[in-house]
Amino acid sequence: MVLGATGVAGQQFVAALSGHPWFSLARLCASERSAGRSYGQALRDERGSLRWYAGGEPPPESLDLPVIAAKEATTDGIDLVFSAVESDAAKELEPKFAASVPVFSTASAFRYEPDVPILLPGVNRDHAKLIRTQQQRRGFAGFIAPGPNCTTVGLAMTLAPIRAAFGLRRVVMTSLQAVSGAGRSPGVAALDVIDNIIPYIPGEEEKVERETRKILGDCLGESDAARAISPLSVAVSCTCTRVAVLDGHTEAVFCETERPAPLDEVKAALLSFGSELRALNLPSCPAQLIAVTDDPFRPQPRLDRDHGQGMTTVVGRLRPEQALGPHGVKYVLLSHNTKMGAAQGALLTAEQLLVDGYFR
Amino acid sequence: MVLGATGVAGQQFVAALSGHPWFSLARLCASERSAGRSYGQALRDERGSLRWYAGGEPPPESLDLPVIAAKEATTDGIDLVFSAVESDAAKELEPKFAASVPVFSTASAFRYEPDVPILLPGVNRDHAKLIRTQQQRRGFAGFIAPGPNCTTVGLAMTLAPIRAAFGLRRVVMTSLQAVSGAGRSPGVAALDVIDNIIPYIPGEEEKVERETRKILGDCLGESDAARAISPLSVAVSCTCTRVAVLDGHTEAVFCETERPAPLDEVKAALLSFGSELRALNLPSCPAQLIAVTDDPFRPQPRLDRDHGQGMTTVVGRLRPEQALGPHGVKYVLLSHNTKMGAAQGALLTAEQLLVDGYFR
Amino acid sequence: MVLGATGVAGQQFVAALSGHPWFSLARLCASERSAGRSYGQALRDERGSLRWYAGGEPPPESLDLPVIAAKEATTDGIDLVFSAVESDAAKELEPKFAASVPVFSTASAFRYEPDVPILLPGVNRDHAKLIRTQQQRRGFAGFIAPGPNCTTVGLAMTLAPIRAAFGLRRVVMTSLQAVSGAGRSPGVAALDVIDNIIPYIPGEEEKVERETRKILGDCLGESDAARAISPLSVAVSCTCTRVAVLDGHTEAVFCETERPAPLDEVKAALLSFGSELRALNLPSCPAQLIAVTDDPFRPQPRLDRDHGQGMTTVVGRLRPEQALGPHGVKYVLLSHNTKMGAAQGALLTAEQLLVDGYFR
Amino acid sequence: MVLGATGVAGQQFVAALSGHPWFSLARLCASERSAGRSYGQALRDERGSLRWYAGGEPPPESLDLPVIAAKEATTDGIDLVFSAVESDAAKELEPKFAASVPVFSTASAFRYEPDVPILLPGVNRDHAKLIRTQQQRRGFAGFIAPGPNCTTVGLAMTLAPIRAAFGLRRVVMTSLQAVSGAGRSPGVAALDVIDNIIPYIPGEEEKVERETRKILGDCLGESDAARAISPLSVAVSCTCTRVAVLDGHTEAVFCETERPAPLDEVKAALLSFGSELRALNLPSCPAQLIAVTDDPFRPQPRLDRDHGQGMTTVVGRLRPEQALGPHGVKYVLLSHNTKMGAAQGALLTAEQLLVDGYFR
Repeated sequence: MVLGATGVAGQQFVAALSGHPWFSLARLCASERSAGRSYGQALRDERGSLRWYAGGEPPPESLDLPVIAAKEATTDGIDLVFSAVESDAAKELEPKFAASVPVFSTASAFRYEPDVPILLPGVNRDHAKLIRTQQQRRGFAGFIAPGPNCTTVGLAMTLAPIRAAFGLRRVVMTSLQAVSGAGRSPGVAALDVIDNIIPYIPGEEEKVERETRKILGDCLGESDAARAISPLSVAVSCTCTRVAVLDGHTEAVFCETERPAPLDEVKAALLSFGSELRALNLPSCPAQLIAVTDDPFRPQPRLDRDHGQGMTTVVGRLRPEQALGPHGVKYVLLSHNTKMGAAQGALLTAEQLLVDGYFR
Repeated sequence: MVLGATGVAGQQFVAALSGHPWFSLARLCASERSAGRSYGQALRDERGSLRWYAGGEPPPESLDLPVIAAKEATTDGIDLVFSAVESDAAKELEPKFAASVPVFSTASAFRYEPDVPILLPGVNRDHAKLIRTQQQRRGFAGFIAPGPNCTTVGLAMTLAPIRAAFGLRRVVMTSLQAVSGAGRSPGVAALDVIDNIIPYIPGEEEKVERETRKILGDCLGESDAARAISPLSVAVSCTCTRVAVLDGHTEAVFCETERPAPLDEVKAALLSFGSELRALNLPSCPAQLIAVTDDPFRPQPRLDRDHGQGMTTVVGRLRPEQALGPHGVKYVLLSHNTKMGAAQGALLTAEQLLVDGYFR
Repeated sequence: MVLGATGVAGQQFVAALSGHPWFSLARLCASERSAGRSYGQALRDERGSLRWYAGGEPPPESLDLPVIAAKEATTDGIDLVFSAVESDAAKELEPKFAASVPVFSTASAFRYEPDVPILLPGVNRDHAKLIRTQQQRRGFAGFIAPGPNCTTVGLAMTLAPIRAAFGLRRVVMTSLQAVSGAGRSPGVAALDVIDNIIPYIPGEEEKVERETRKILGDCLGESDAARAISPLSVAVSCTCTRVAVLDGHTEAVFCETERPAPLDEVKAALLSFGSELRALNLPSCPAQLIAVTDDPFRPQPRLDRDHGQGMTTVVGRLRPEQALGPHGVKYVLLSHNTKMGAAQGALLTAEQLLVDGYFR
Repeated sequence: MVLGATGVAGQQFVAALSGHPWFSLARLCASERSAGRSYGQALRDERGSLRWYAGGEPPPESLDLPVIAAKEATTDGIDLVFSAVESDAAKELEPKFAASVPVFSTASAFRYEPDVPILLPGVNRDHAKLIRTQQQRRGFAGFIAPGPNCTTVGLAMTLAPIRAAFGLRRVVMTSLQAVSGAGRSPGVAALDVIDNIIPYIPGEEEKVERETRKILGDCLGESDAARAISPLSVAVSCTCTRVAVLDGHTEAVFCETERPAPLDEVKAALLSFGSELRALNLPSCPAQLIAVTDDPFRPQPRLDRDHGQGMTTVVGRLRPEQALGPHGVKYVLLSHNTKMGAAQGALLTAEQLLVDGYFR
C-alpha cells in the first residue's frame, strides 16, 4: 500500500514498486480529493494533462487501481505500507497503519522519537533492533521506519566509513540542493531559481545535523525495554541552499578525523563500504553504495545522479582537510534526492528488514 | 589606459571609467587581432553583432577610440593603467607599464610576489606601503597593484571586521560562483551548467586561501627595503563550485573566532565596517561596504548583487557556529564578482591610492 | 488606489506610481487575508521574508499604508483605480469602483465586452470614445479601461505601423514567454522550465488573436449610443509557449501585407511610430515606442527588455516574408511583459486619457 | 570507421555503434591533435577529466582503439564510414573515402549538390536512387549520404504524411532549439542562454527551408545519368531560435494544406506514418516514427525527447489552421536533435540502404 500515492514522492514509490520481485502494488491511497477515481484518472489535472514526475510513464498495472482516501483505508490483505505523505498527515496516519503492519516512510514526523530508528541501508543495520522497543512501547504489531531527510542520506552514508576507519570529530557541510526535493505543489518557483540561488531551506539544516548524529550513533541497551540510540558526539554544522538543478543534491563536506586519514585509505574505505549489505543481494541494492571519482570536475548532478540507478552516492574531489584540525579530509558528494534519498531508499530498507526478520 | 579592453573584464573597466569624475578613458589596448580598428568596431563580431557584456550600451565616447596593440602601446600622456589581461600577458605587459605609471590589475600574475600588496578597499589600506618597497626593488616610477580574485573579495571583506572584533582561528568556505567570472571566450558552456553544477574551478581554492591570509596579514618592517607582509596565521579551507547564475558569487562561510561572537555584535561590526574609507567620499565607494539582511532567504544573487551598485557585500543568515570551536559565527555572503570583485573594485583602489598620495 | 496590491502585478503598480508626477499612492487594497496590516507587513511572509517582485525595494512611502480589504474599500477621496486582481475578482470589483472613478486594469474580465475598449498607447487612441458609450450604457461616472494581455502588446504595437503603411492580410506568431507573466503563487514551477519548454499557456492564444483584431479594429458609430468596435478582418494564428526566461516575451512574427513592404520602409515605419503620442510628453512614455536593431542576434530578452525602461518594443531580424503571400515581412520582437505589458502600460494609458479629457 | 570521433556528434556515433548488431567500431579518426593516442586518452582533457557527451560512459571496447589522423586514414578493411566532421573538413575528407565505401554524414557540405540525396528514413526512400547517379558522375565505388540538418528532421518527418494525405501549400515554422545542437567547443555560452533566448542561428533557417523542399521533392529521371530531385514547390518560412534546453528541438508549425485536413485524419496520418520502414525491422528503427499526444501541455523537451530512444518525433497541440488559407493544421513537434537528428538517424539510413542493396 502506498500513502500519498499521487504526490511526487508517492509516484516514486509506485514507480519503484512496479516490477519489484518481492513486493507488489496492492492499494493506493491519497487525499479525499483524489479518492474514488482510478490512479490513472487521479494523475491527470482538470485539462487531462498527465502529472507524472517519476520518470518515463506510470506503470500500466497502476493505472486502473482505485485511489482510496487514506483516512478510510485499512490494512486488510496488506503486508506493508510505504508512506509519502506530509509530516502532519503522517503523524495521524502512520501509527494507525503501524498498529498492524510495517510502515516505511519518507516523512519526518517520527524520525526524532526515541523509539524510532532512522535507518540508512549499509550504515546502521543494528539500529533496527529499536523496532522491537517501539513495538513493545506502542503496542504495534507493525512499526514505523522513517528514512532520513534526503540531504542527510549522502552525508551520513559517506561519513560512516570515514568514522569507522579514522574516527570523526567535526563536520562542516554546505549543500546545493535540487528543486525536486521540494515537490511540486507549489514546490520551487521558477522565478526563485532562474539566475539565482535560495540560501535557506526552512528546517533542513537542523534535520541534517540531528539525523546525522542519530544515524551514526550507537544503539545501546540490552533489553527491548531499555534500548535507545545514543547520538554520535560529533559537531555537525550545515548551510543548505537551493539551486537550479532538477535532481541530485551536491554537498561540499569538510571533516576533521581523529586519526590521520591518508587519501588513498579514505578512498579505499569509501569504495569498500557496504560489502555486508551487498552480500545480501537485495533487489534495490546497487553494485556500489559509494563510488569515488578521480576526475576533479566530478561529481556533477546531471552526469552522476543516476549512478547505480540513483542508489549510489558519488564522491569526488577528495583532498586533505587541515583547517579543522590536524587530520581530516574534504570532498564533494552527490546523492540522488528522490531515489536513494526517498522512495527507493525506503524500499531498500524494507528489503533489508524483511531479510533480517522484522516482518514477513 | 585600459589593457585587454575588448574582453569582459576590460569592458567593465571601460564602463566604469565612463563618466568617472577623476579619471577618463584615454587609450584602449587589446590583442593584435583588434588593433587598428575603432573600439566600436572591435566590439563587433564578423556578423556585426555587438559583443558587449558590461550592461547597457558601450559608452558613446569609447566607440571612436582607436584600439592599440598592447605590445606596442606606450604610457605617453597616460597617468594610470587598468589591466584586464590574462595572467600570461600580464606577466609581460604590466611591468613594462609600471616602469612609468601605476597599473591596477585584475590579473593574478603578481599577487603572490613578496613586494606586491593585494589591496582590498576598506581592509588593508596600510599594505599600500609595500608599493614603496616594490618601487625601490624594481626601479618602477609607477607600480603594480593587483586586486584580489573575485571570490576572495567577499570573504576577506567580511572576515576583516570579524577578525578585528573577535579574533579569527579557522575559516571554512564553500562558494557557488557565477558564470560571468569565467569570461566569455569560451567561458562556461551552457551544456555544463544547465541542470548542473561544476564542483571544481581550477586554481580557485588555492587563490582564495592564500589571498585571504595575505590580505588579512600584517605589513611589517620599518624601512621600505625591509617591508613585507606577514600572512595571517589562520586556517582557511575552501571548496569552489560553479552554478547557473549570471553574476554574483554566493559563499557559505563558517568561522571559529578567538572570543565569543554574539550575533548582534557581529552584525554591528559588519555594518560599521569601512567608516574610515567611506569618510574619504571616493567616487566609487558605496554607502555601505557590507550590508546585513535579517531575511533568512537572502542574500540571493539576482536580488542582491546590485546592492550599492555592485560594490556592497551582502551578508545574511548570521548564525552561531559551534562545530569549529567554542566560539564562532556562520553566514552566507554575496559579492558581485564583476563589479566590486573586478573592475570597479580596482577603480576604488585607484581612488584610494590617489587620495593617499601614491600617485597623482 | 491599487487593487490586488500585494500580488506581482499589483506591486508593479505600486512601484510605478512611486514618484509619479501626476498620480500618487493613496490607498492599497488586497484580499481579506492581508487586510488590517500595513503594506510593509503584508509583503512579508510568515518567516518575515520580504516578497517583493517589482525590482529594487518597495517604495518607502508605501510601507506604512494600511492594506484594506478590496471588498470593503470605497473610492472616497480617490481619483482613479489601478486594478491588478484576478479575472474573477475583477468581474465583481471593477464595476463597483467604475461607478464613480476610472478603473485601469490588467485583468481580462471586461476586455471582450462590446462597450469596453482595449487601449494600447500609440495604437488606438480613438477607441477611447467607446468609454462614453460604456458610461452611458452602464451608468458609470467612471469607466473600466483594461489593457491588453501582455503577449498582445508587442504584437499589436508592431502590427499597427505595418498595417498603416502596407495593409495587413495574415499574421502568424509564435511566442516564447517569460515566467513572470504567470505571477508567483504558484506561478511556473522550476521543475517545469529547467531544461524544458511548456508549449501551451491556457487561453493565451485565443486572447492574443481576439485582442489583436479588436485593438487594430475601427471604432464605428457617430453617437455614443451606437458606437462599437469593428475588429480588423485579418487572420491571426498563434502558438504560445513558456520558456526559462524571467522577464520579456519574445515573439516570432510572420506577416502578409497587402502591398509590397520593402525592409527599409518597414523599418522607417516602425521607428517613426508613436510620434503623436510622444508629442504629448506623458511621464511614462518612452523616447521610442518601437526600436529596431540591425544586430541579427538581437533582440534578446535579458539584454533588451529594459529598453526605454521596459516601455519600448524592440524589433529585430527584419526579413522579407514570402511564404504567406506575395508581399510581407517577418521579424522577432521583444516586449517587457510586466512593464509595458502590464502596470506601466496601464499607467501610460491613464496618462493619455487624462490628457484627452476622459477624467480629471 | 568514424570521422571526427572525439567531437560531440562523433561520440554519438561511437555510442550508437556500440552493440550494434550489424556494424562494429573498427577505426576512429580525429584531428591530428588527438592522433596517436588511444580513444580513451583522447577523450580526456589536460587534467584527466573525461569529456564524454553522449550519455552514460564511453563503450569499453572503444577505449583502447587508436585514434588515427583523419587525413592519413584509409578504408582498408573498412565497409562504411560515419562522418561527424565540420563542413570544411567534410568537403575534403568525405569524397576521399566515398571513392571506395559509403560515407554517412552529419555534415552539410554535400547536402545541396544535385547528385546527393538528403535521406530521411521513412520519408524519401526513393531518393536513394540518386546515389547511382552520384557514383556514375563522380566515379565513386562508395557514395556520400548526408542526413538533414537536425532542425529539418522533425519538420520534414511530420510534413511528409500531411502532404501525402492532404497536399501542402505553405509552411511557417518557429524553432526553439537545444544548446547541444551547437556542439561543445565552444558551443553555446552559458552567459548567452541563462534567462535569455538567442533569436538567430546563422544559416539555420536557409538550411531548413531548402532541405525540407528537397527531401519532400520528387526524384525524377529514368536513367542514372538523368536523375535529379525536383524540390517540392511549397513555401517554407522559418525563424530559428536557441533556448536554454539541453537536448530536443521544439518547433511550432503552421501548415496550409490543399485539401481539408480534419484533425482526426491528420492524427491518423501521422500515427500510421512509416509502416513500410518499420516492416523492415531495422535495428535503429523505433516502434513509431511519429507519436501524437493529446495532452495540451506536451510535447516537452525534457519529458518527450527520449521517446523511442530519441528516434520518434512527438507531435502535440494539433489544431486547425485557418490563417494561412482555407484548410490547414498547426502543431508543435519535438525531435531529438542529437539522436534522430544526428548520429542515430544516420545509422538508420545506413541500415535502410544496406537492406535496399546500396552497399554490403
